[in-house]
Amino acid sequence: MKFSVNKDSLLKSLQKVCSIIGTRPLLPVLGNVLFDARAGKLTLCATDLEVRISTAIEAEVEVEGSTTVPARKLLALVSRFVADKVTFDVDENFHAKIRCGTGKFNLLGLSSADFPAGIEFASNKEIKIAQEDFKTMLGAISYAVSIDSSKIVLTGVLLTTSASSMTLVATDGKRLALQEKSPESITGSDGECIIPLKSVTEVKRLLEGDSKLIIRIGDKFCSFETENFNLTSKLIEGNYPNYRQVIPTSFQRVVEIPASLLLAKIEMVSQVLSNSTAYIILSFSENKLSLQASSSEVGEGEDELEVSYAFDPMEVSFNPVYLADPLKVCTADTIRLKLNDSFNPVAMECSEGFLYVIMPIRKTQA
Amino acid sequence: MKFSVNKDSLLKSLQKVCSIIGTRPLLPVLGNVLFDARAGKLTLCATDLEVRISTAIEAEVEVEGSTTVPARKLLALVSRFVADKVTFDVDENFHAKIRCGTGKFNLLGLSSADFPAGIEFASNKEIKIAQEDFKTMLGAISYAVSIDSSKIVLTGVLLTTSASSMTLVATDGKRLALQEKSPESITGSDGECIIPLKSVTEVKRLLEGDSKLIIRIGDKFCSFETENFNLTSKLIEGNYPNYRQVIPTSFQRVVEIPASLLLAKIEMVSQVLSNSTAYIILSFSENKLSLQASSSEVGEGEDELEVSYAFDPMEVSFNPVYLADPLKVCTADTIRLKLNDSFNPVAMECSEGFLYVIMPIRKTQA
Repeated sequence: MKFSVNKDSLLKSLQKVCSIIGTRPLLPVLGNVLFDARAGKLTLCATDLEVRISTAIEAEVEVEGSTTVPARKLLALVSRFVADKVTFDVDENFHAKIRCGTGKFNLLGLSSADFPAGIEFASNKEIKIAQEDFKTMLGAISYAVSIDSSKIVLTGVLLTTSASSMTLVATDGKRLALQEKSPESITGSDGECIIPLKSVTEVKRLLEGDSKLIIRIGDKFCSFETENFNLTSKLIEGNYPNYRQVIPTSFQRVVEIPASLLLAKIEMVSQVLSNSTAYIILSFSENKLSLQASSSEVGEGEDELEVSYAFDPMEVSFNPVYLADPLKVCTADTIRLKLNDSFNPVAMECSEGFLYVIMPIRKTQA
Repeated sequence: MKFSVNKDSLLKSLQKVCSIIGTRPLLPVLGNVLFDARAGKLTLCATDLEVRISTAIEAEVEVEGSTTVPARKLLALVSRFVADKVTFDVDENFHAKIRCGTGKFNLLGLSSADFPAGIEFASNKEIKIAQEDFKTMLGAISYAVSIDSSKIVLTGVLLTTSASSMTLVATDGKRLALQEKSPESITGSDGECIIPLKSVTEVKRLLEGDSKLIIRIGDKFCSFETENFNLTSKLIEGNYPNYRQVIPTSFQRVVEIPASLLLAKIEMVSQVLSNSTAYIILSFSENKLSLQASSSEVGEGEDELEVSYAFDPMEVSFNPVYLADPLKVCTADTIRLKLNDSFNPVAMECSEGFLYVIMPIRKTQA
């Protein structure tokens, strides 16, 4: 196997595929990147057995073939190369002789036969959407995915489709984030699947540029494909809870609040809290929102801001982190908070198709 | 106690003093910053009992007094304040009522009587030097300070003075870095002292601007003073080893090498090494330097560069980290490497007054 590639293209493609390789892979070959060179193309691939990412770049292929090369070491080397052209010459023992400028390296690889085979699956649904749109959708909800592995279905993002619309949902049982959007096209049956957080994070990282993303969903796998990469992921098996039932159907009060100012004041006032189970109190009165927090270790804090509120005064308490999370990714100037009382779920809306539902904290009387 | 200060000045001065406060201070009061407001000035001070940093800013003082306030919480708060003016009103229980814009906070402080008293010491030597010069001197040598606390004297920087010159030395027993310079003035007796690495790091961080630095040295303490801060540090007690004896008095070979190119090639070739005790081999031949490294786990690497070398070919091996460290802070285009053979100490010179001595590794024959 012998081929040459452009250094910058190689570096960029290694950065695309290598991020899923952990520092201690399950098997030695999973620490390697798969190289397959043929027909003027080098295909690179990495996997952790759950997610598989591949990408291809132009190559001058002199002798076709495939091998695997230690991914992190290769990435570290290539990122330090200065010349434009990198040549690989791989012998029958999978030793990769690498040349770039005056530098000569020999990395000990492993047979491509030991590398896990690619996943083939029958897709029963295909979604076409602008990359930027799907990236924004993922950003709007992915922080709410549960990191508690005891409820495995909540450790992924629920993707549901109807005739013309796609909905992404994430919840950890204390708050729920939902983003709905009409993609360019949906073919196949309605239904839902749960995509693991790791795959969601990788897809979000990889999306860039103007071209389209094709999402294919099968029974046990899904794939995300653009002109720049292909990511195949296992799906999480199990039934996602019926999240619709936690969303109140009506609200007695609606208040408009400047988004970035609210975020700044939440983050400032919550500095006086000393642990993560603490809460921040929002007190609404005519056209005014006061934020208060206190802890016996640090002290007290309060601030206020002008809002459009025209109902009876009320108080409601939240975990400040849960309240701040959606504001950090909100691009709208103003959010709408929809409330009934101090005990029932509160909804936050900002950009179109987005809904966030958060449970107030039933605080012990101060 | 009641005073007002400018928010940006307060933030900057808190950042100056608070970095020495660890996440788990020995005593609660050491997690606080000392505030002393009088005569149009607020003085801030923090200490970890070894190092003490203080700084002062202009203040509108309404009621003079002193107190202590939780440093990290205050810093987190002030960095989020948006208005220009911050007002402190401290009651007899050391509760600090803080106002900035519409925000109102109450931080639970501790009595300034519990805060360690300032260190007074008689100085027997005073050095005056441009801040930038001393900062450069510290940067040139401080990476070579030992982090092995079993040899306590090596965990600091040796400062020695003669009539008109000051020398800083750092060594961990495997390499030695030395920087000599004539400061603006030196008064007092010749002699030496050992400054702990933590103080060195803090001084380096704090130095900025054009004004002069005054270094005062006593028997057990030293201080660093500019118009912006005062840092007082304990000295490390004990005798620094006679480092002069490890510096060869003559060299048979001198070679000039482009500094940044050498650094880049060391870092590239050493990627094939798999642990920190590994070495990189430098092979000198006529006007050529080859670098080689290998490990049984990863593979081999080599590269070369043009140098001005006109002696018999020779090989010498180094820990690549030790060889790279001085090159990272070297500002000269070219370094001079001075060698005798493959076994004796090698010297590196770059900018004026700088000397680096490194022991080659006696490698097992490859």
